[in-house]
Amino acid sequence: MTFPNAVWQAVPVETTGTASTTSVLRVMNERAVFGETFRLGTVSRPELAQRTGLSKPTVAVALTNLERAGLLRQVGTRAGAAGRSAALYEVRPEAGWVFAVDVGRSYVRVGLADLVGTVVARRDETSRGTRARDLVAQLTRLAGELAAEAGITRDDITLAVFGTPGIHDKATGALHLAPNLPGWDRRGSVERLAGIAGSTYVVENDVDLAAVGEATYGLGRGVRHFVYVSIGTGTGMGIMIDGKLYRGFRGAAGEIGYLPVGEGDPLLDEPGARRRGMFESVASADGVVALARRLGLHDAATAKDVFDAARAGEETARLAVSRVVDHVSHALAGITAVLDPELVVLGGGVGSQPGDLLTAPVAERLRDLVVLRPPRIEVSTLGTDAVLLGALAVGLAEARDLVLDRAAALR
Amino acid sequence: MTFPNAVWQAVPVETTGTASTTSVLRVMNERAVFGETFRLGTVSRPELAQRTGLSKPTVAVALTNLERAGLLRQVGTRAGAAGRSAALYEVRPEAGWVFAVDVGRSYVRVGLADLVGTVVARRDETSRGTRARDLVAQLTRLAGELAAEAGITRDDITLAVFGTPGIHDKATGALHLAPNLPGWDRRGSVERLAGIAGSTYVVENDVDLAAVGEATYGLGRGVRHFVYVSIGTGTGMGIMIDGKLYRGFRGAAGEIGYLPVGEGDPLLDEPGARRRGMFESVASADGVVALARRLGLHDAATAKDVFDAARAGEETARLAVSRVVDHVSHALAGITAVLDPELVVLGGGVGSQPGDLLTAPVAERLRDLVVLRPPRIEVSTLGTDAVLLGALAVGLAEARDLVLDRAAALR
Repeated sequence: MTFPNAVWQAVPVETTGTASTTSVLRVMNERAVFGETFRLGTVSRPELAQRTGLSKPTVAVALTNLERAGLLRQVGTRAGAAGRSAALYEVRPEAGWVFAVDVGRSYVRVGLADLVGTVVARRDETSRGTRARDLVAQLTRLAGELAAEAGITRDDITLAVFGTPGIHDKATGALHLAPNLPGWDRRGSVERLAGIAGSTYVVENDVDLAAVGEATYGLGRGVRHFVYVSIGTGTGMGIMIDGKLYRGFRGAAGEIGYLPVGEGDPLLDEPGARRRGMFESVASADGVVALARRLGLHDAATAKDVFDAARAGEETARLAVSRVVDHVSHALAGITAVLDPELVVLGGGVGSQPGDLLTAPVAERLRDLVVLRPPRIEVSTLGTDAVLLGALAVGLAEARDLVLDRAAALR
Repeated sequence: MTFPNAVWQAVPVETTGTASTTSVLRVMNERAVFGETFRLGTVSRPELAQRTGLSKPTVAVALTNLERAGLLRQVGTRAGAAGRSAALYEVRPEAGWVFAVDVGRSYVRVGLADLVGTVVARRDETSRGTRARDLVAQLTRLAGELAAEAGITRDDITLAVFGTPGIHDKATGALHLAPNLPGWDRRGSVERLAGIAGSTYVVENDVDLAAVGEATYGLGRGVRHFVYVSIGTGTGMGIMIDGKLYRGFRGAAGEIGYLPVGEGDPLLDEPGARRRGMFESVASADGVVALARRLGLHDAATAKDVFDAARAGEETARLAVSRVVDHVSHALAGITAVLDPELVVLGGGVGSQPGDLLTAPVAERLRDLVVLRPPRIEVSTLGTDAVLLGALAVGLAEARDLVLDRAAALR
């Protein structure tokens, strides 16, 4: 599996004030040359000079430094116009490694990619218990195994990106709203992830990462404003605005489980039960099963059972699915009224049901609920890989800056 | 009335590719000097050199050009450190004029401001009919009157900014979803505004402008992500993300009248009536009156009557207001689930009701409906001026670039 080089979010180079010293300029030039080489794959010195607007001697100095730091390498020559041949350069794939992790509710998915995005090792496993200690042990073992496959060690990993349910509170180091990961809501608990791989790590909401995955490798490529809506065990939404992930003030943007869609006031409905949002309680996999049972479909064990029975023409199941269509339509109507996205990508076990049962009737229903034409509604083509791919995209963009910064710091 | 210089949205200077010619550099330098003078008010050449990072001779050339073009002027001197005195510069207020217009449903509000934001003339009038021809004639007359007060003509106005209900479709020049402005939904109809003042005009949704007004002069100053929610004759929301107005894919972001909050499926509820969103049909001024009458408060003529009766302790009115609180709470719960804003600024006739009747009970109710703490909820302090102030803020930022571009084009 090979991925194109992903730019997650441009890191602005500070150029204001009086900081324009020679060394800052040198790093800026190297960043420009490195960035263009990433973009173009294989490139000559004259091409780099043309693309960056830098002089050929400046490009030559940058190339020498980047090659010496092990970030670029020569890969032969190309015949030039006047019979002279130009040396060609490319990014050295082994110059950086990204460990991407999707900490799901009942499984973990991990991948190890080199700096140009080639996934050299990949593993999916059932999650070993929900205790933090067990999970950290499992991920540490997996990082070691994947590193060994690539011929490196865990310490060689440039950074690790963890996609988890819930909201990572960076101020306290706690993970909020992840009831399936008990104990992680304690102060500082997220720091346990620090020792798993390399020296740097990023923790991001899983659905947010899936949205980045869609933006980089999926249906969201080239779409300015879109949302990724996950409806499965839980519900959630990742929002991409102008190609950037929007997290909200407290990182709780897209917590659509709490959309006031459904019946009653479910936060107060279930005394003793965990706080659960209104939309999540009716549209998540459990919600679909509960709804079907209330309607009389007593042998439905999973949401898939309900959808399968509906497709087979079972009347009660069809009624249950039509209620789910109603709830999802109202949720998307609310999201559209607020955000007016160009595209809604649906994912998750319920959201990924074939179009005839969900997307098509929802799109039809939505026409009566929104002010202009409804947004396009499509089922994710990345499936269960969306979160892992988002983690990779984020990791590759960050790793590119990290290896440059570390090389600069060594001089 | 004087306003600080507002920067609505930074206009990026194109510096990519091979366009770095001397003239582009000169314009960039003048833009930097002009921008810093705007920011600082009164400034000396050494200060400008320090702030912009440009050399003193470069600053001197820029100042000479800007003064010659009538954009800056000398305003005396300041004693320097070594006994030498430095000439002081400021923006020439008469270098540009902004005509700001709030085309309301039953009134028009207009203001004329100079380039540093001093409003030199201001007028509020009842709207002369809703026919496009009448409205254009009224606004043209007002532009002439305000210009005369300032000692200029309509043609001297740098640009006009119109805040209107509905969505301006820039591709077709039609104004959609503005039922109170009949005829404006025809192709090209917005072009009728071109002749009213100056040579350049901007049309923007009124609630979106109010959000910009809040961001520049109101409660939204310094708040990274917030929304302005207007509940009055109609309903609408302006969204500020990272200090920038977010409009959505088709300009329909924030059309919260269509939030699926309320009873039934109101788009289908009123056969023959104009298409009206679910939330707007229950929470707008008309909706509040209709609700109160349904409950038995037959002498309520306006939403204010209902709120006044509730404050006086009338039981039916209190019940009606508690329903309105429910609907507004559910709408804000939906908005919070999607956007997680730091702050909700409430405006409009219903939204601006004193806190004891609306904001306080809504904030209380919201605690049970959102996933984390609710956002701050505050009533706008700009009142009915919010749209006009937003138009001014947008106009001043645009005018600053326009006068520079026009001066550059003349050379």
